[in-house]
Amino acid sequence: MRRKVYVPGSRPDIQVPFAEVDLTDGSTPVRLYDTSGPGVFDRLPRVDWAADRRLHGAPVTQLGCARAGIITPEMEYVAVREGVAPELVRDEIAAGRAVLPANVNHPEVEPMVIGKAFLVKVNANIGTSAVTSDVAEEVEKLTWATRWGADTVMDLSTGPRIHETREAIVRNSAVPIGTVPIYQALEKVKGDPLKLTWEVYRETIIEQAEQGVDYMTVHAGVLLRYVPLAADRVTGIVSRGGSIMAAWCLAKHQENFLYTNFEELCEIFARYDITFSLGDGLRPGSIADANDEAQFGELRTLGELTEIAWRHDVQVMIEGPGHVPMHKIRENVDLQQEVCHEAPFYTLGPLTTDIAPAYDHITSAIGAAMIAMYGTAMLCYVTPKEHLGLPDRDDVKAGVIAYKIAAHAADLAKGHPGAQAWDDALSKARFEFRWEDQFNLSLDPETARSYHDATLPAPAAKTAHFCSMCGPKFCSMRISQELKEYAAKGMADKSAEFVESGGKVYLPLA
Amino acid sequence: MRRKVYVPGSRPDIQVPFAEVDLTDGSTPVRLYDTSGPGVFDRLPRVDWAADRRLHGAPVTQLGCARAGIITPEMEYVAVREGVAPELVRDEIAAGRAVLPANVNHPEVEPMVIGKAFLVKVNANIGTSAVTSDVAEEVEKLTWATRWGADTVMDLSTGPRIHETREAIVRNSAVPIGTVPIYQALEKVKGDPLKLTWEVYRETIIEQAEQGVDYMTVHAGVLLRYVPLAADRVTGIVSRGGSIMAAWCLAKHQENFLYTNFEELCEIFARYDITFSLGDGLRPGSIADANDEAQFGELRTLGELTEIAWRHDVQVMIEGPGHVPMHKIRENVDLQQEVCHEAPFYTLGPLTTDIAPAYDHITSAIGAAMIAMYGTAMLCYVTPKEHLGLPDRDDVKAGVIAYKIAAHAADLAKGHPGAQAWDDALSKARFEFRWEDQFNLSLDPETARSYHDATLPAPAAKTAHFCSMCGPKFCSMRISQELKEYAAKGMADKSAEFVESGGKVYLPLA
Repeated sequence: MRRKVYVPGSRPDIQVPFAEVDLTDGSTPVRLYDTSGPGVFDRLPRVDWAADRRLHGAPVTQLGCARAGIITPEMEYVAVREGVAPELVRDEIAAGRAVLPANVNHPEVEPMVIGKAFLVKVNANIGTSAVTSDVAEEVEKLTWATRWGADTVMDLSTGPRIHETREAIVRNSAVPIGTVPIYQALEKVKGDPLKLTWEVYRETIIEQAEQGVDYMTVHAGVLLRYVPLAADRVTGIVSRGGSIMAAWCLAKHQENFLYTNFEELCEIFARYDITFSLGDGLRPGSIADANDEAQFGELRTLGELTEIAWRHDVQVMIEGPGHVPMHKIRENVDLQQEVCHEAPFYTLGPLTTDIAPAYDHITSAIGAAMIAMYGTAMLCYVTPKEHLGLPDRDDVKAGVIAYKIAAHAADLAKGHPGAQAWDDALSKARFEFRWEDQFNLSLDPETARSYHDATLPAPAAKTAHFCSMCGPKFCSMRISQELKEYAAKGMADKSAEFVESGGKVYLPLA
Repeated sequence: MRRKVYVPGSRPDIQVPFAEVDLTDGSTPVRLYDTSGPGVFDRLPRVDWAADRRLHGAPVTQLGCARAGIITPEMEYVAVREGVAPELVRDEIAAGRAVLPANVNHPEVEPMVIGKAFLVKVNANIGTSAVTSDVAEEVEKLTWATRWGADTVMDLSTGPRIHETREAIVRNSAVPIGTVPIYQALEKVKGDPLKLTWEVYRETIIEQAEQGVDYMTVHAGVLLRYVPLAADRVTGIVSRGGSIMAAWCLAKHQENFLYTNFEELCEIFARYDITFSLGDGLRPGSIADANDEAQFGELRTLGELTEIAWRHDVQVMIEGPGHVPMHKIRENVDLQQEVCHEAPFYTLGPLTTDIAPAYDHITSAIGAAMIAMYGTAMLCYVTPKEHLGLPDRDDVKAGVIAYKIAAHAADLAKGHPGAQAWDDALSKARFEFRWEDQFNLSLDPETARSYHDATLPAPAAKTAHFCSMCGPKFCSMRISQELKEYAAKGMADKSAEFVESGGKVYLPLA
C-alpha cells in the first residue's frame, strides 16, 4: 500500500511529504519522493517564511541568504526531501549550481531544489492555446502532472484568459510554476510583435510576479547579430519566444529589449525571488541544426547574463535543446557548464531523432536520460503530441512517466545516494513474487496491475509464483529462487536433494 | 504517399524492397528500408540460391562463401538494401563482424545483415505460452511486427502445438526467424529439465533446422562453475534457458551438455547455415546484478565458443543484457567485442532502471539506443508487458516502434551514411508545413495523422501554416520561415519591408 507521510524538520512548520510504500514481507517501508501536493489547498497557508525573513532584515532571495550563510526553512525542507545535509543545499545555491524557485507570493509551494548535486527534476508544460483552452482543464492537468511526478509545471497559455488561467494554476500548485511572459505581453499588443515594448513586458512581468510565478523564461540572449545565423537552418527558429524576439530585433533593427533592460529585470526578479530560466530562443528544432553557431552563440550570451543576475542575488537556470543526435549531447552540457559557470541546465529533451512524431516522448526520453547523466539538472518533458497538437490528460501522463524514467535512470548513473534502493526494492519484490509490492513500488501502479491482470485476473495470481509470460512450468525466477536455496545449503553433494525437490517443482500444473 | 518498390540487383531474381515516400513538393521521393514482406507468400518462391551454390560446389554457409571470396546473391541483396558495396558485406561477414541469417530451408526470407557496420536491427519476440496460445494470433503478430519494422522475429513459444506454430511462422515470414530450441526440448521431456539429454536436444535442433529456422539461441556458456556465482544476486538467473541449464548442471553435477557437444552442434548448424545466437543465460535481471562476474564469466566462454563455431564456418552472434544502468552500458559492448572477437552483439534492451513495469519499452529503449551507439548490431525489443504478461498486438507495435527509434537514433549517432537524410526530409516537411509529407515520412503515419487530427480535423488544416500547439498567431515555424525569406533578401535596410509583411502576418485569424 502507498500512503502519504510527512517528515518533520527542525521546526513544526517544516513538514516534508513522502509516499511511503508498505511491503507485504514486513520489511522496512520504502519512502519515495512525492510531488503530488496536499490536494486540498485550504490545509494551507503555512507560515510565510519569506515575510519572516524580511522582518528580520535577511536577504529576500535564496541566493542572497545562501551567500550570507543562512540556511532558510526552504533549504532545510529540500534537504529533508533529498536526504542530504542542509549545508549542501545552501552551498550549492550559494555557488549558483542549484536554484530553489519559490516566489515570495507563492506560499502554496512545497520547496524543491534544482541542481546537478540533487535528484534530476522533471517539468511538465501545460497551458491553453488559441485553438484549445479551458481553465478548469488546465488545473486538472496540473494536478494530474504532479500526481505522476512533475517537479515543476510551466503554464504556457497563449489562449484567452491568460491571467485567470495562471491565477488558478498558481493557487492550486504545490510545485513551482514557470511561465514565458512574452506570450502574455504579445497578447497585450494584440499579437503584433512589432508593437512589443519594454514597458509592456515589464508590466507583464510584475503582474505575473505578484501572482506568485516562481520562474520565468526570458529570451534575453537572442541578439540581433545571432538571428541571421539561423536563416540557413533546416528548421530556422523553433522557439516561440525566440522567433518573436528575432522578428522584433530584425524589424526594428535594434538590440533585443530584454537584453538592454536586463539589469532592471534583475531588480524586479530580486524583489520576488523569481528565478531566471534563461531561454534558448535559438535552440535547434531538428537533428540537422544541432550544436550550430546560432545555438552556441546565444549560450555564451546566457553565460554573461548569468553573471549579471548573480550580482543581483537572483537565481538562474539555463534552458537547453531541443533536437540533438546522441553523439552531440555531451558537448551541450560541457559547454553550458563552462560558459554559464555551472548554473543548472534545464533542457527540453533533447529528441535524438526527428522521424517519430507521435512518439517524441520516447525519442526525447533517450536524449533526456543521457543529458541528465552528463549533468543536466531538470528535464522539460515532451509528450506524444509534440509537433502535432496540444497534449491532453493522457499525453501529460505519458510525458511525465517517460521523463521520470529518464530522470531516475540518470540518478542511478550518477550514483545519487539512495537512488538504487528503489530499484532494488522493486526487483527483490519481483524475484520473490510479491506482486502487490511490485505494483505499489512502480512508477505507475495502476497500469502495472492492469497489465498483469489482463492475462491473469484471478486474485490467486497475485501470489502465484509465475506470470503469463512463461506460464507455470518455465518460470526462471522460480527456478533460480530454488537454485539460491540450493546454493545456500552448500553446492557440493546436494544433487540428490535437488533432484528430489526439482522433481516436484517441475510437475506441470494439472 | 507511401508505395512499395523493388530495386533490382545484378540478376533478375534479386529484387530488393523499399518503401518509397512521394513528396508533395515534387522533390525526389525518399526511400526507406522495408521489412514488411511481400504480404502474399505465393508470389514466392524465388530461385533457391543455396541449392544453386551446392550444385556448383561452393560452401553452404555465408561465412564459408565470404571466406572463399564469393559474393552470394544474398550478400548482393543486402548490399542494395543497405546502400553499401557488396564487397563490404562480404568482408564483414568473412571477418565474423556481421551475420546474414538465412537457413537454406527458408527461401521465403528477404536477406538482411546484422553487424555494426550496417543499420542497427531490431528483433521482436512473439510466441505462445502455456497460459496464452493461438497459432493464427502468432502469425498475425509476426505480420504486424514486420509491418512496423521488425528485422527479425523470434518464436519463443512454450505452449502447446510448438511445431505447428513455428511452421506457420516460418512459412509466412520474410524476415529471419530465431528460436530457443531448449523450450521445445523441455516440452518433449514433459517439462522436467532433469530428463533433458543431448539426444533430445539434437533431435529438436534438427526438427527446427528442417523447418527453416534461421538462428537459434543456445545457452552453451552456462557452465557448472558459473552457476554458484548467481546465487547471491538480487534476481538470480532470469533467462529461462539459462535457468533450465543451470538446474540441469547442478542436479547432475555435470558440465552443460550444450557446451560438451558444441562441435556436433556446429556441424548441424553448418549444414543448414543456421546462425548461432549464443545465449546469455546469466544476464542480469536487475540493476543490482549488472556487470557481475557471473555475467562476464559466461561472456568469456561465449568468446571461446565463437572461435569453435567459426572453425566450422558457422555464423555467430552474441546475446547481451538485460538490466544495466547507463554508466555501465559501454563496458558491456567493449568487453563483448574484445572477448568475442567482434562477433555481432545482440542485446535485450538493456533496461536502465527497474522501477517502471508497464513502461519497460521506454526504460529499455534508452539503454538500447546507447548500447547500439557503442556498437551493438541488433536490439531485441522489450514491450510494455515485460515482467507482467504476454504482449498482445498493441504491445508488439509499441515495442517495435520504441526500438526502431532507438536503432535509428544510434544510426544517426554512428554517422551511418544516409541515416540523417530521413530526419532531414521529415524536418524540412515540418518546417514547410507539408503535413501529409510529415505524416508519410513518420515511423507511424497513422498515429501521427490521428494526433494532429484530434484537435484540427478539417482537411484545410493539412495545408495550414500552423497547428493546435501554438495556434495561428504564434507559430514560430511560420515566423522563422519569414525570417528566412527576409534574410535571403539581405539583412540590412529591409526593416521597412518586413514591418509591412509582418503586419499582415500577425493579424489574428477572424
